[in-house]
Amino acid sequence: MEINKIRELIAQMTLEEKAGLLSGEDFWHTKGVERLGVPKSMVSDGPHGLRKQDEQADHLGINDSIKAVCFPAASATAASFDPDMIEKMGEALGEACQHEKLSVLLGPAVNIKRSPLCGRNFEYFSEDPYLTGVMATALIKGIQSKNVGTSIKHFALNNQEHRRMSSSSECDEKTIREIYFPAFEMAVKEAQPWTVMCSYNRINGTFASENPWLLTDVLRKEWGFEGYVMSDWGAVSDRVAGVAAGLDLEMPASGGINDRKVVEAVKAGKLDEKLVDLCCERILNIVFRYVENAKPETPWDKEAQHLQAAEVAADCMVLLKNEGGILPLNKEDDIAFIGEFAEKPRFQGGGSSHINCFKTTGAVEAAKGLKVTYARGYDVAADDAPADMIAEAAAAAKKAKVAVVFAGLPDAYESEGYDRTHMRMPESQNRLIEAVAEANPNTVVVLHNGSPVEMPWIGRVKGVLEAYLGGQAVGLAEVKVLFGDVNPSGHLPESFPIKLEDNPSYLFYGGEPAGTEYREGIFVGYRYYDKKKMDVLFPFGYGLSYTTFEYSGLKLSKDKILDTDTVTVTVTVKNTGKRAGKTVAQVYVGDVEGYVNAVRPVRELKAFRKVELQPGESKEVSFTLCKRAFATWRSEIHDWFVESGEFSIEVGDSSACLPLKAMVTVESTQKLPAHYDMNSIVMDLMKDPKAKEVIAPLISGAAAIFGDGEGGSEAANEAVTEEMSMAMMQYMPLRSMLGFSNGAVTGEMIDEMLKKMNE
Amino acid sequence: MEINKIRELIAQMTLEEKAGLLSGEDFWHTKGVERLGVPKSMVSDGPHGLRKQDEQADHLGINDSIKAVCFPAASATAASFDPDMIEKMGEALGEACQHEKLSVLLGPAVNIKRSPLCGRNFEYFSEDPYLTGVMATALIKGIQSKNVGTSIKHFALNNQEHRRMSSSSECDEKTIREIYFPAFEMAVKEAQPWTVMCSYNRINGTFASENPWLLTDVLRKEWGFEGYVMSDWGAVSDRVAGVAAGLDLEMPASGGINDRKVVEAVKAGKLDEKLVDLCCERILNIVFRYVENAKPETPWDKEAQHLQAAEVAADCMVLLKNEGGILPLNKEDDIAFIGEFAEKPRFQGGGSSHINCFKTTGAVEAAKGLKVTYARGYDVAADDAPADMIAEAAAAAKKAKVAVVFAGLPDAYESEGYDRTHMRMPESQNRLIEAVAEANPNTVVVLHNGSPVEMPWIGRVKGVLEAYLGGQAVGLAEVKVLFGDVNPSGHLPESFPIKLEDNPSYLFYGGEPAGTEYREGIFVGYRYYDKKKMDVLFPFGYGLSYTTFEYSGLKLSKDKILDTDTVTVTVTVKNTGKRAGKTVAQVYVGDVEGYVNAVRPVRELKAFRKVELQPGESKEVSFTLCKRAFATWRSEIHDWFVESGEFSIEVGDSSACLPLKAMVTVESTQKLPAHYDMNSIVMDLMKDPKAKEVIAPLISGAAAIFGDGEGGSEAANEAVTEEMSMAMMQYMPLRSMLGFSNGAVTGEMIDEMLKKMNE
Repeated sequence: MEINKIRELIAQMTLEEKAGLLSGEDFWHTKGVERLGVPKSMVSDGPHGLRKQDEQADHLGINDSIKAVCFPAASATAASFDPDMIEKMGEALGEACQHEKLSVLLGPAVNIKRSPLCGRNFEYFSEDPYLTGVMATALIKGIQSKNVGTSIKHFALNNQEHRRMSSSSECDEKTIREIYFPAFEMAVKEAQPWTVMCSYNRINGTFASENPWLLTDVLRKEWGFEGYVMSDWGAVSDRVAGVAAGLDLEMPASGGINDRKVVEAVKAGKLDEKLVDLCCERILNIVFRYVENAKPETPWDKEAQHLQAAEVAADCMVLLKNEGGILPLNKEDDIAFIGEFAEKPRFQGGGSSHINCFKTTGAVEAAKGLKVTYARGYDVAADDAPADMIAEAAAAAKKAKVAVVFAGLPDAYESEGYDRTHMRMPESQNRLIEAVAEANPNTVVVLHNGSPVEMPWIGRVKGVLEAYLGGQAVGLAEVKVLFGDVNPSGHLPESFPIKLEDNPSYLFYGGEPAGTEYREGIFVGYRYYDKKKMDVLFPFGYGLSYTTFEYSGLKLSKDKILDTDTVTVTVTVKNTGKRAGKTVAQVYVGDVEGYVNAVRPVRELKAFRKVELQPGESKEVSFTLCKRAFATWRSEIHDWFVESGEFSIEVGDSSACLPLKAMVTVESTQKLPAHYDMNSIVMDLMKDPKAKEVIAPLISGAAAIFGDGEGGSEAANEAVTEEMSMAMMQYMPLRSMLGFSNGAVTGEMIDEMLKKMNE
Repeated sequence: MEINKIRELIAQMTLEEKAGLLSGEDFWHTKGVERLGVPKSMVSDGPHGLRKQDEQADHLGINDSIKAVCFPAASATAASFDPDMIEKMGEALGEACQHEKLSVLLGPAVNIKRSPLCGRNFEYFSEDPYLTGVMATALIKGIQSKNVGTSIKHFALNNQEHRRMSSSSECDEKTIREIYFPAFEMAVKEAQPWTVMCSYNRINGTFASENPWLLTDVLRKEWGFEGYVMSDWGAVSDRVAGVAAGLDLEMPASGGINDRKVVEAVKAGKLDEKLVDLCCERILNIVFRYVENAKPETPWDKEAQHLQAAEVAADCMVLLKNEGGILPLNKEDDIAFIGEFAEKPRFQGGGSSHINCFKTTGAVEAAKGLKVTYARGYDVAADDAPADMIAEAAAAAKKAKVAVVFAGLPDAYESEGYDRTHMRMPESQNRLIEAVAEANPNTVVVLHNGSPVEMPWIGRVKGVLEAYLGGQAVGLAEVKVLFGDVNPSGHLPESFPIKLEDNPSYLFYGGEPAGTEYREGIFVGYRYYDKKKMDVLFPFGYGLSYTTFEYSGLKLSKDKILDTDTVTVTVTVKNTGKRAGKTVAQVYVGDVEGYVNAVRPVRELKAFRKVELQPGESKEVSFTLCKRAFATWRSEIHDWFVESGEFSIEVGDSSACLPLKAMVTVESTQKLPAHYDMNSIVMDLMKDPKAKEVIAPLISGAAAIFGDGEGGSEAANEAVTEEMSMAMMQYMPLRSMLGFSNGAVTGEMIDEMLKKMNE
């Protein structure tokens, strides 16, 4: 509907009707205004499937959701590094939404995996903002291509479940801009999600649901978001403040309480009615966009989507270890599948994203027809591995050529609503793996988990396949990958630390009751491990294949650019093995001499491409890097800024394996504002040509009497090198010229100099 | 002089005279008022010797200081863990001050060794606030026992030289109170230093020299400091603000500029003249205290102090490695001393603490009469080890039974005024050590450095002796320890990380131009390495001996106390070897269940004792722990608070070797204030008996409809455990009862409940 028509509609509404539109009718519907023909619309939890309330059941939203298709969770799809694939998955989800008359699917969830402990990690893509942004953008494009909306969430800094509805995420501006915002920013700028969902938490003290900087200044004015913002379910504290801040829709229903508060605030002159109108306008714009494009006749072929879910899952699996080429398995061999997850896989997490699957396929079922035996190994529900189960599993392993243990985290370990307290797998499963590996050294572990786990048995198994939470068809994918029908091509979207304590947020994660401090700043994930030169179990970007690849011929289009230019990076990738396969070419950029070198990461992912290659085939792959690939956020100008100088460009297939490297010099076209005062120091003044001209004569005079620590001399029998005294002098403030010049320099002279420098 | 008499004197002064007293006359003197008989007084750099300006030379303070005795620097003396010894050293320094007519010796320097990079680390004691406090207190007591003053410095948070005169140390209150203040606090409360020196830097934005919270609220009102505060040399930015904040004396002279500004401010009504009077009173109180107790006839026996310096140095040396008992050396054997530091030892650092020594003794000289050869090995001044020097050294090593390489950091690597940029020793020395060890596996390295270095060769040498910066008689001490005349008993006052990147402050140290963020918070030194379970090269508190000790029989006087009680910890220490020796019994306390367990260190040093034992001898050693041993700083009450619960008490001779452990339960007698609002969460409310009574009925009602993530249900085919839903519910704010109760709970009801809870 044209915006003017929407405005006309709103103009006909009473204040009460308008205030009513600003909260849900129930758990899942926006309100309508019957007398004006304004329709309701329905939203549904997602995002890797439809958790649509079964309206035949009840309206409170506390019973069954409809039967649907569960695709792999974001933790898995991120591992594909394959935006084309996830876009197609989005198209399938969009079709299902159209079939089910849903206006908006609530996702994707793009919060950064700051700590392995976050209960909701399985729903999130990555520790890296760029990868998260690319995958989220693709998913949104896919879903919205079917004319239904998405709700990118949880905006913002919702990186823990602990105290999630009250805790304040305390984080500096640079870190917010460089780590926690970019995925939202990229998705808004490139895919315009129809809606944004604000998070439960506070950000630096202010609830996201009533944060004007977040919801208006950044989201709308800076990034150009055009849709409506809804609250996470129950995230509203002060509704009136929320309206003023730009929170259009409160979900779910407020029982009429907040509607009344909005009305009262307008009547009392505390809230501008125009802001209420604006919220209505933004909500109705999206409601009508859906209604006018609704195609309930769209078919929803669940069986086809089940197979698509299997394809997606296979594209996501990360081969972490493959000693002696134990994988792929041979279909002629006797294989033991061990562990309850082989029969009843864990393929999704608990909470709002939990899908009522119309069917699921585990690996045992998928392996029908192959020479596969099965032993349960452990009891997930009891979180136990009784001796007889372990004995049975070990016996099965002994008889087989290869034993494959299906392991991972049980539901209760990983869910929306609370965090893990450790990074371990169940002791029962660790014991099982040790026993199986003892019985048969040819042991492979397949992992089902949404976030890293410690692997105390890593040295005693020959293979590890990370399946993440692979969706309802995960068993099909696992069998295809294990037996080599699909060559694994997933790469880790996060670092796997050796132990929990290694994680950068470990010391302060969870935090004090009032809030959690993001003290590691920009050093999240590999940005931390690389900078600290720490060993990890598996690095970010890492993933093996049944074939091998060679990277060569790195070329840059230019070796010197302005920050307004782009540079094209070209490499050649070759499949040097004997099977077709896919590699993920990754491009990392590092500032080797920035002014804030100490607080810059060694390298950051700035581009990647999944490349499929037949045996022996070569492809040339190109990437374009623009200003953002080189810029950091500078809080003093509240903007991106490129520090002129050299940057490294590294290319390879993992953050820890980057065989190609080239340097590019980038020159900034921006000038930072400078203001000098009595406390400005020699070093900074001498770097600025204008200031240098003014103070250089003064400096050479002072140098003669300086270089003596607290004012006395070094003993004459100990040489103070010129280097040492220059090193000390560089930190002297302008004001100290007064004291050290013995009256030769006056305050008036310095004031005059400052005036010139600041002109 | 009685305070009333001082006040009378001040009352007779003109405003100009009073303002004049508030800054130095020159580099080293306070001003006098001749017409009133107010004397000048002289201060001198220290603190491990007298860097007294030679008044015969010139008055600007830019030429020679007098010949004096250089004792070991604080980095070394801290390693002694021997407050009695350092107190005696203080007495010697005090006598020298009396002899030299000095009113105040400028030290001790008690800043925490936050990073190995700080250029001034050699002047600082430790990474641990308690050890620093004990050693500083003892030194102050020793010096002041001779009726001359000290100036504990640099108050506060001056933990880097980089941009030291302008940078702001950005640090949270808890960390300031638990890590950066305690040494100042203990020294002020237990030893009343005559003066305090404020630091150059800003603290959270405000210069220390004009910080009323620092200089008045905390230092005087809380801790009861009675002396005067002087500025570090050139630390004054806004003198008028400084007077108001409690900075009594600006040093050095301001050229009259700031005196005039003070006068003008008083005349303009911008500064209360009473504050000027107060500064004068505090300064003159100390000036007269010195004058009235001056004993210029005190002898200064430099030769005796040289020998005392050697004894101190021997008490400080830390034996880090002694494979196969390579040390002590046998006096009958041929020994090669290698490295320029054997002849010309590095025994002090550059800057204000640099002493013009009346003599120095290197190890080569000290070893006269023993079968010791010498090869230079490297050229310190050139920072090089030419091939011929290395060859000569290797040849000498080959011929000897044992080769001892005297190595460490050259002057230019470590000095006041600038920081190190890496933690490495000179490449030349590393190459030399490798070559010597190659030539003779029986190689020992003696280190001269004020702060940790990386030891890439650690696996290829059999012995390492850390001498720190051991003062002018270090050679005497080294020979005594190397040949077994003294059994080494120093223990590390800091952790030696394996590499620089391991250090907790690494990511943010130095920081941005405006300031440096103390993001590691309380996790400095071993508090970080223990919490992160990181390997270190050598742990805090570690040190070997030529004999062995056994710790046993840990007893606590009570196993349950109130926080107002004390508990006595008793252990038995036995010398189980064949030589007399000293061990350092260390007591660490850890909160095993504090509310902020996630942000509590694993253990903290709370008591220690150096114990001397003959072979076979046992001693029972007791320690008393009071509230502060168990308390943390709670920012919400701005006070120390003990979280009721169990605490571990561990005893041993290193932070990493604590064979004895007991538990004590401490119950708090304080109650934290609680205030609840709509955003208070179930978990917190249920913990408070009063709040629990009010909301319990509401909770049980809500539980029935809760446990469903964002408002919808878990699919019925997936069990949500009760545990899971309780885990989610605990984080719900009171306000959400409104939304989830479907109207049954009203805002008025909740307001009423809050009123009751907050009564």
